Amino acid sequence: MAGESVLSRVVRIFEAFGPDDQALGVTQIARRAGLHVATASRLVDELVRHGWLRRDPDRRVRIGVRMWELASRASPALTLREAAMPYMEDLHAVVGHHTQLGVLEGREVLFIERLSSPEAVVNLTRIAGRLPAHVSSSGLVLLAHAPRDLQESVLAGPLAAYTPHTVTDPGRLRAVLADVRRSGVAFCRGHVDERAAGIAVPLRDADGAVVAALSVVVPNDDNARMQIPALKAAARGVTRAMRPGMPRP
Amino acid sequence: MAGESVLSRVVRIFEAFGPDDQALGVTQIARRAGLHVATASRLVDELVRHGWLRRDPDRRVRIGVRMWELASRASPALTLREAAMPYMEDLHAVVGHHTQLGVLEGREVLFIERLSSPEAVVNLTRIAGRLPAHVSSSGLVLLAHAPRDLQESVLAGPLAAYTPHTVTDPGRLRAVLADVRRSGVAFCRGHVDERAAGIAVPLRDADGAVVAALSVVVPNDDNARMQIPALKAAARGVTRAMRPGMPRP
Repeated sequence: MAGESVLSRVVRIFEAFGPDDQALGVTQIARRAGLHVATASRLVDELVRHGWLRRDPDRRVRIGVRMWELASRASPALTLREAAMPYMEDLHAVVGHHTQLGVLEGREVLFIERLSSPEAVVNLTRIAGRLPAHVSSSGLVLLAHAPRDLQESVLAGPLAAYTPHTVTDPGRLRAVLADVRRSGVAFCRGHVDERAAGIAVPLRDADGAVVAALSVVVPNDDNARMQIPALKAAARGVTRAMRPGMPRP
Repeated sequence: MAGESVLSRVVRIFEAFGPDDQALGVTQIARRAGLHVATASRLVDELVRHGWLRRDPDRRVRIGVRMWELASRASPALTLREAAMPYMEDLHAVVGHHTQLGVLEGREVLFIERLSSPEAVVNLTRIAGRLPAHVSSSGLVLLAHAPRDLQESVLAGPLAAYTPHTVTDPGRLRAVLADVRRSGVAFCRGHVDERAAGIAVPLRDADGAVVAALSVVVPNDDNARMQIPALKAAARGVTRAMRPGMPRP
């Protein structure tokens, strides 16, 4: 068994866990990973010994805290998140609805942080969850500042509709991206869910490159637009906090 | 090359990254992991292809966002953190200093969340960072409710002193743990740093088992004790939020 092949199998074992899976049986893992049960079982046992997976008393398997710890330590996601968090807390306190931080991973937004209140409006995202880039306000911001070839590849479709308001026409999407670059904000009423409005602004690093999108999800009403200035102000604060040599909050 | 051995090498590559390492060269990784440079280089290349590691333009290696995403998805740390976060935000707003969430990993506290303000008191912890259990208020809470054999193993020492106030005498540590179980709080003035007081309470799951410690780090003065009721109230809220069938915040 070549080293490459073992590593690929380990990756497939972890990829067997979807965003909704708290725990899986070894047979499920084997099936999803396309492995023999014996192979999956042997690798799972070793991953459990390393703390990367853990077993519940009923023998079902979960991701281990050790895996999370190693992944978190040196991750760029954590650095960005730590710079953004104090500003996200202030935004969340003022806006009173979901406040989130997303990065572009392929053609999707990966949400690396979300602050929510129990009474907040409906929101399809979750931490470590994804949405197609063209669907959400965060995705439109990230796509607007993405390399040209990635933009063209997304524009070439298919562009899934989450609601009748999702931008699915390539010509309109091109115009929306230009507008986001010009205005510095993506304002999307009902694109992901009819009841919610998403508002996103770019987060720039010290060199001016867009590294993430900061967004809020608020009720889809005429007051939604009022949150834009608070969001833009918070984005400036995060950029300042990411500047090298700044004391970290 | 046996499968076990490849997996162990991959684990050692990730363990080469310490809490302070944003990026490492392959030679550094190889040295810390005890691997030949050629072996480390080949495994790093494959991990980069899977997105578990990523390369900076200067060829230095970081943990990849994909690794973080997979680790976060099904992790018990995330579930706990999501239940705790709204209460932590409220605590942080009221107390105005570091508010943190820790779990026991071996003989140490692993901090899985921390909310901080730039003006808050000095604090040695960080997200995905660790402290020996006997040193911090969170650790004393977790140790007080840990299995007996783990307690005895920690009591058997050695017990490192961070300040002259750190509990390093086994007899006194035993008394402190009993007091924490009785009072439901660990109140530690100057145990980690002379300038700070740590206050921690247990977080119990729906079955009453202690699964984490909720703590604040405040200035070491006579007002510190005032934060105890707010902390105890927040802990009850988190337990309620973790109850099965409760709407998740």
